[in-house]
Parts: sequence; structure tokens; C-alpha cells
Amino acid sequence: MPQIPRPSARRLSLYLREVQLRLRDGAKRVSSKQLGEALGLADTQVRKDLHWCGPFGGSGVGYDAETLRDRLRSVMGLSRTWNVVLVGAGNIGRALVGYGRFESEGFRIVGIFDKSKSLVGRRLAGTTIRALADLPRIVEEHDARIGIIAVPRESSQEVADILVKAGVRGILNFAPARIDTGGVPVTNVDFSVALEQVAFEVTMSGARGEQP
Amino acid sequence: MPQIPRPSARRLSLYLREVQLRLRDGAKRVSSKQLGEALGLADTQVRKDLHWCGPFGGSGVGYDAETLRDRLRSVMGLSRTWNVVLVGAGNIGRALVGYGRFESEGFRIVGIFDKSKSLVGRRLAGTTIRALADLPRIVEEHDARIGIIAVPRESSQEVADILVKAGVRGILNFAPARIDTGGVPVTNVDFSVALEQVAFEVTMSGARGEQP
Repeated sequence: MPQIPRPSARRLSLYLREVQLRLRDGAKRVSSKQLGEALGLADTQVRKDLHWCGPFGGSGVGYDAETLRDRLRSVMGLSRTWNVVLVGAGNIGRALVGYGRFESEGFRIVGIFDKSKSLVGRRLAGTTIRALADLPRIVEEHDARIGIIAVPRESSQEVADILVKAGVRGILNFAPARIDTGGVPVTNVDFSVALEQVAFEVTMSGARGEQP
Repeated sequence: MPQIPRPSARRLSLYLREVQLRLRDGAKRVSSKQLGEALGLADTQVRKDLHWCGPFGGSGVGYDAETLRDRLRSVMGLSRTWNVVLVGAGNIGRALVGYGRFESEGFRIVGIFDKSKSLVGRRLAGTTIRALADLPRIVEEHDARIGIIAVPRESSQEVADILVKAGVRGILNFAPARIDTGGVPVTNVDFSVALEQVAFEVTMSGARGEQP
């Protein structure tokens, strides 16, 4: 697989989401212009990024939507099922489990863990919440490559250490803290960053004179 | 305010987060190289983006961390307080309210709304959950410019319509659906996209030969 630069990598994920939405709406083809408009990018940028998915034939006619989706999924490693362990059965953990779309997108939560003794043993969406001590065994049994950190900031580094030691290869981190993983890739979802982004967009749209 | 391209805008938010983390760790200065390394970007890109925050004096010595933070906050419109309304008191809504860092970052949740009759009237983190019918009045009273959508996919467009009609200027959307807002800027937080990003990073790090 070629070395895809991280910013392009991030955008491929967004293209995939957009193509899936359009397919659901009944679209057969999708153009770089449409993708660019939906995501606020120049269509030249979109075409450049989509080169990572191989040649697509003549320009000007757009991409066949199903082909584009399949190639994006393949390049992104999504044509397989990923086993995932989730640490933290609080609000975020429950929101993730209740999200209900992971399974259809190739992600299977094979273990839910919490350090709270009052939660261990309870069931969450059909899965028993386990103690953290069980995590290494479950990761190994299911060859879980991805770990989700949905614990408070204070516990996030400790949980990251446990996940890395157990052998996960990538981490999705919801704790608002920088975690050290010794090279294991981390994707952060930070609600404050997201809210700041909205504030920024409002500020900029004010500057553009859109609405008073 | 100058027109900052959206990809740079997104990165300014990440630089701000990184600078704040470093300040908390006691750093006095931060360089474009450090920021680039932390975020997986070339330092030329970092310097280019930070030009939007005005001139910073000699290169090679890094930025004064506090000055950089303040300028980033100012450019991003974060030196004021933003009043925010939250729609949806389910798991995501509760996770957001329990997040506990918004207030210190200039965001104040002035109303929580839910369509469920069993939730309306209950209290969540000291705020009474209200019916959606009260939303326009609260938005107006508090001049709330930002709305958060934390409802299931099926209700997301309906809620977006109510928010836009009430006059919010920006939306943070947690529902896994594309919403139409007639030009009001939307920032999406999609858990599947985040998880796909992790899978992608794992796939790529495997391709780079980092760990078997």
C-alpha cells in the first residue's frame, strides 16, 4: 500500500461518508465538484486525494459511486472486520454502544471494560462489562486491533498503557488529554475542539457578512 | 477578519489545543516543528497556517506560547463567551454536559431540550430539561448562537430546522446524518468516521512495517 499523507487520509474518510450518503439517496455517480462542495474543498484537491484509490477513467463524468465507495473502503482497510475493545462504560461508552452503526460498518465491539466495581458484571447492549484485568486476554482471544478510550482524563494514560501493552494497534481517544502510546496511532475526538470549530465558523461567517 | 480557508481553520483549532496542553505542562515557547510533529504536519504548513494570527517576529526561536494561545483564541472568536443550546438529553447529551470543560473554554450551555416527555422537567447537571417548544424563546433570551444536535438520526433534520429557525448561527451535529441548514455552518462529529480513521491508521502503519 502506498504512503498516503495524513491530511489526505483524513479526507478519504470524509469522502467515503459523503459517497455513502449519496448512494443512500439513490445517486449512481458522484463528481469531485460535488464532493468538494459538500466538504468545503477545491475539486482539484478532491481529485488529487482520490488518486490514491487508483485510476478512474475519463474526467468530467464523475465517479461511479459504488466503485468509489468500494475502492475507498479497500484503501482504508475497511473491507475486513475490525474487532474493538471499549474501555469506559460511562456516558460516552454507552453512547458508542448505543450508536448501532458500527457493526454494519465492519467494527465489532468484543469487550467492554470499566474499573468501577459497581459496573463490572452488568450488561451493556448485550455485552457483560468486565474488569480491566481481563482486557489482555480478550484482546488476544479476539485479535482486537483497536481500543477505544472513553474514560475521564485522569485515567486515560493508564488505560492507554494497558491497551498498548495488550497489543492493540490503534486507539480512538475520547478523553480530553494527550496520551503517550509509544508510536501506536491515536485518533482524538475532543468535544471542545469540535465546539471551538463551530464558534470559529460562526465568527468567520459573520466576517463574510452572511447574516447579521 | 481575513478569509481563512477551512482546512487551515480546522488546524488552528488543533494548534490551540496543542499549545494549551504544552502551557499546562509548563512550556514557555513552542515551535512550528513541535506543533508539526505532534499533529503529523510539515512545519512549513504550520508556519503558513499561523500567519493568519499575525506577525510573530524572528523565526527559529519558536513562538511565545501564551501569545500564540491568545492570538489563536482571538482569531477563532474564542475570547468571548458563547451561549449554547443542547438538543438531546440521551447518552451523548449527558456525556457533553458531564464533560465539564466547556465553561472554562468560553461555552455556556443555557438550555437543554428533549422531545421525550419522560425527560422534560428532570434536571441534568443543574439544568432543567425543557420541551423543544421552549427553544426559540431561550435562544432569543440568551442570544445563543450555537446549537448542539445530540438526537438520533431520524430526528436530526427536524431539530436542525428548529435551531435554524430560532436563529442559531452554527451547529455541532452528533447525529450520523447529513443535515440541511440553508447555509448555517455545521460541524459534524461522526463516531464511525473517527473509528474508520483509526482502522485506516492501523492499516497504514502495518504498510509502513511498523510492528507486525
